[in-house]
Amino acid sequence: MTASWLGPGKASAVALTFDVDAETGVLSMGEKYARHAMTMTHQAFGPDVGVPRILGILRELGVPATFFFPGWVAERRPNLVARVVEAGHEVAHHSYSHVPATSMTFAEERNDFERALEVFQKQDVPVYGHRAGLWEASWQTASLVAEYGLAYDSSMMNDDRPYHVPTERGDVVELPPHWSLDDWEQYAFLPAPQIGSIIEDPQKVLSMWKYELDAMRRYNSLFMLTNHPFLTGRPGRAEALRSLIEYGMSHGDVEFLTCREIAERAKADTSLATRPLEQPEIEPGLFPSE
Amino acid sequence: MTASWLGPGKASAVALTFDVDAETGVLSMGEKYARHAMTMTHQAFGPDVGVPRILGILRELGVPATFFFPGWVAERRPNLVARVVEAGHEVAHHSYSHVPATSMTFAEERNDFERALEVFQKQDVPVYGHRAGLWEASWQTASLVAEYGLAYDSSMMNDDRPYHVPTERGDVVELPPHWSLDDWEQYAFLPAPQIGSIIEDPQKVLSMWKYELDAMRRYNSLFMLTNHPFLTGRPGRAEALRSLIEYGMSHGDVEFLTCREIAERAKADTSLATRPLEQPEIEPGLFPSE
Amino acid sequence: MTASWLGPGKASAVALTFDVDAETGVLSMGEKYARHAMTMTHQAFGPDVGVPRILGILRELGVPATFFFPGWVAERRPNLVARVVEAGHEVAHHSYSHVPATSMTFAEERNDFERALEVFQKQDVPVYGHRAGLWEASWQTASLVAEYGLAYDSSMMNDDRPYHVPTERGDVVELPPHWSLDDWEQYAFLPAPQIGSIIEDPQKVLSMWKYELDAMRRYNSLFMLTNHPFLTGRPGRAEALRSLIEYGMSHGDVEFLTCREIAERAKADTSLATRPLEQPEIEPGLFPSE
Amino acid sequence: MTASWLGPGKASAVALTFDVDAETGVLSMGEKYARHAMTMTHQAFGPDVGVPRILGILRELGVPATFFFPGWVAERRPNLVARVVEAGHEVAHHSYSHVPATSMTFAEERNDFERALEVFQKQDVPVYGHRAGLWEASWQTASLVAEYGLAYDSSMMNDDRPYHVPTERGDVVELPPHWSLDDWEQYAFLPAPQIGSIIEDPQKVLSMWKYELDAMRRYNSLFMLTNHPFLTGRPGRAEALRSLIEYGMSHGDVEFLTCREIAERAKADTSLATRPLEQPEIEPGLFPSE
Repeated sequence: MTASWLGPGKASAVALTFDVDAETGVLSMGEKYARHAMTMTHQAFGPDVGVPRILGILRELGVPATFFFPGWVAERRPNLVARVVEAGHEVAHHSYSHVPATSMTFAEERNDFERALEVFQKQDVPVYGHRAGLWEASWQTASLVAEYGLAYDSSMMNDDRPYHVPTERGDVVELPPHWSLDDWEQYAFLPAPQIGSIIEDPQKVLSMWKYELDAMRRYNSLFMLTNHPFLTGRPGRAEALRSLIEYGMSHGDVEFLTCREIAERAKADTSLATRPLEQPEIEPGLFPSE
Repeated sequence: MTASWLGPGKASAVALTFDVDAETGVLSMGEKYARHAMTMTHQAFGPDVGVPRILGILRELGVPATFFFPGWVAERRPNLVARVVEAGHEVAHHSYSHVPATSMTFAEERNDFERALEVFQKQDVPVYGHRAGLWEASWQTASLVAEYGLAYDSSMMNDDRPYHVPTERGDVVELPPHWSLDDWEQYAFLPAPQIGSIIEDPQKVLSMWKYELDAMRRYNSLFMLTNHPFLTGRPGRAEALRSLIEYGMSHGDVEFLTCREIAERAKADTSLATRPLEQPEIEPGLFPSE
Repeated sequence: MTASWLGPGKASAVALTFDVDAETGVLSMGEKYARHAMTMTHQAFGPDVGVPRILGILRELGVPATFFFPGWVAERRPNLVARVVEAGHEVAHHSYSHVPATSMTFAEERNDFERALEVFQKQDVPVYGHRAGLWEASWQTASLVAEYGLAYDSSMMNDDRPYHVPTERGDVVELPPHWSLDDWEQYAFLPAPQIGSIIEDPQKVLSMWKYELDAMRRYNSLFMLTNHPFLTGRPGRAEALRSLIEYGMSHGDVEFLTCREIAERAKADTSLATRPLEQPEIEPGLFPSE
Repeated sequence: MTASWLGPGKASAVALTFDVDAETGVLSMGEKYARHAMTMTHQAFGPDVGVPRILGILRELGVPATFFFPGWVAERRPNLVARVVEAGHEVAHHSYSHVPATSMTFAEERNDFERALEVFQKQDVPVYGHRAGLWEASWQTASLVAEYGLAYDSSMMNDDRPYHVPTERGDVVELPPHWSLDDWEQYAFLPAPQIGSIIEDPQKVLSMWKYELDAMRRYNSLFMLTNHPFLTGRPGRAEALRSLIEYGMSHGDVEFLTCREIAERAKADTSLATRPLEQPEIEPGLFPSE
């Protein structure tokens, strides 16, 4: 009998994750946006107002969460990561610069990856997992994660349960996210850079995510919620998040876990799928090359 | 008295169709996306997780469906098409590469068309109909469909009932789809390639499609639903699909049919419209030519 | 005491207008789209299926409407305009090619304007009013309307009641439309040309337009509804239109009128605003010129 | 004991603000749009029909508001600002041209800033605060505000309560707005320039903003509503605004204030945050530079 990643009697697990991108969320689209005062303050709202507010909600409800920090953000606000750790939450690796690995060489990606690790080390914060900036991992990202001894990655989308990824440097666990459980598509709006085209009602988002949680209970999926404090830290959205958590807690069969806890359980669960990550070979001329 | 494409006492027919585009859904927009690991896994979710889940729902509810496969996808996952056939569903031709025929010469389109047929032949899977990648048929597509002995096409939008298309190579039946009964516009989101700008609540989609089905019962239309397993295979959307099917089944006057069944009935129904497909002649200089 | 454009005891008037753009709706964005079979059939749905369906609803409910035809569409489907006239509705001038006047010289606009008039004359169809393609009138459009003896234009947006426009060639009445009472923003979707990014639920649109009608009853506005048969001719949307009309009819204080009727009443109503149409003078260098 | 920016027993304050951009809203995106008659009239609706309608609602409900005028608009419609002042509302500085300061040199921004001040002076209208066009302030905007003796700015987004901004020229109060309390993202639609992609139901917006107000009462935030008369002056949206105000008034713990009143109270409230505005230093090569 194999260990199960889901606790006894549990139908689904919720990972509350917060990507604290702050300014890197737009700087990774162009350094020129540093000149845009409103845009920079729009992003700064995340760490400066959003994170404390979210920490308050998590404390009130007594649930754990995982905060993914770009190294750049951790470096510039040295007390921020410590505050998250003190509140009992997990801190994880979200690249250094938030620039997508798909726009880098592998050497550049490694360099960016290491640089973030150094920041966390200097701040004495242990990290167990990684998420690519914008989820835009390369095909080598998983082996970097293994090489540096992290337990999990959270960037791939070919499942809605944890799965095993074999790499040249050892196995890692993938904790797959998805756009439909991300606040970006629902709330993001900025004219420069243009990061969204509409702003949805938090009540729509709450209703949609409750519906998704119920469906995931049917399929024993991982409810991997990705929120951004610069978005969900706003009052109405924060209250919708509170209601979502309360809804999940009201079911006896849903547990709230950190990514690390899920990864450790998943590692021992041999019933989960194994999915190697390999770039598909493309026949020249078959698809447009422009 | 002519045969009727709708069964006795039936007000509308539902064709549940699934376009299993997998990676071709984005590779057909640029081969460079093969480098994007998250994007490729996002698409792989369709055949690897979505199709089995959808097959489960169809089995539980006892309704037939039609799965449109690009030849490229059938070739790379040799057991997938067989699994669909064994479950009692129809498999149909969805081009080889999913590259729009409007971006090809006619010779290129023919080559792509034949190549997919060869894949299905090699896998011993009979196909009866065709749908253009992205529905972007050329003006010659229907005659290709006739030439290769298929019974129907499902790419044109000038009716919401089946109709007859005369071609140089014989008549085919058109089973018209429409954007409003497609999950792409409701759920698709990716930053690279940018395939959508918002993610809708499955409850909105369910409500809209129930409303459409009721309206189609009034007009005796064909409810041609086009879903993509990489989208609708996600838990909340899969449950919305289940509810939609249950809603249709709760009406006594709605039947669920494969495309082949509808095409065969429509072929014998001379009361349906005949609509030749001809490129409009354009007066030079009248419309912008840039 | 001045005549009033609103009938005695009426709080608002509804003008149901249908822009039968057919293929010109996309050809005016590029003649290359003539090669796109699906796109052309998507547009052809309007005159071929949508218009008969809408005429049926109007007949059942007993309300009049105004159909705006590009001359190109009237010319290619010679029986279509006659059918609308026989059903008792108004036919109006919607340019010849649907190409925006803002992309033409004034001579080109005049030529396009006259060419449409000739089509209507040849078909023996009297027209009383005009609407610019895409509402993209030039600053001279109103004087063309006056010069050719038409009573009204319906392209400008600086009021929600009819108003008087003085021109060098005489006065015309403006019957202002608005994007928020147009089905395009709610329903249009095509990838090439990209004409929309989301498809809304007809139930949302119905609810929004009922709310607007109630608000317009408060402000005595003109409910100028602009629908496109290639969009609203689809079953669910057609039924939402039916429900909207029934809702308006259920109020004793709303009347349904053709544009011609409204223009004639407005012409005699001196209490309505007079708004000259003049291009603002722009100081060089003040606004970006690229 | 420090003075509080919120009145005794109050949980939140509402600032109703109206940006009367009129034609500058699109001319600031390109002077060529002056040739587009429909677009210009679409914008003119704001001052010509929207402002009177909104003034009527404010009068009926007895609440104060703040109207931000670009100098260009105030100059071209000399009676408009006076009418707002006579109705008892605040008038504030919204640049001269509405061109974003982020596209200007500092000298150009100062020139534009002064030019608007001269218009208000010539019309004998005192102004106490400033909002950047499109909120696109530069990093020097706050010091301009201080230098010219204004009390507050309303363009930055790093808080949802008022805060103190130290500048070289003295302190100012920031009254932060946000995209989620702006009608632009919900209602704006134009094809040229393309200023939006969908039109939302005023009932959605009303529901979302009521939800936000309730959440802000929990967090003691400033409900800084930014509306545009060319959008919210339309009947349905105006009625939704009326309902929103009535909803706020129905709570005993919400007060409606002008921006000036809030700024004066905030200035004396030392418990509010102090947030210097400084451009982040960017390491060369870290972020994309193109």
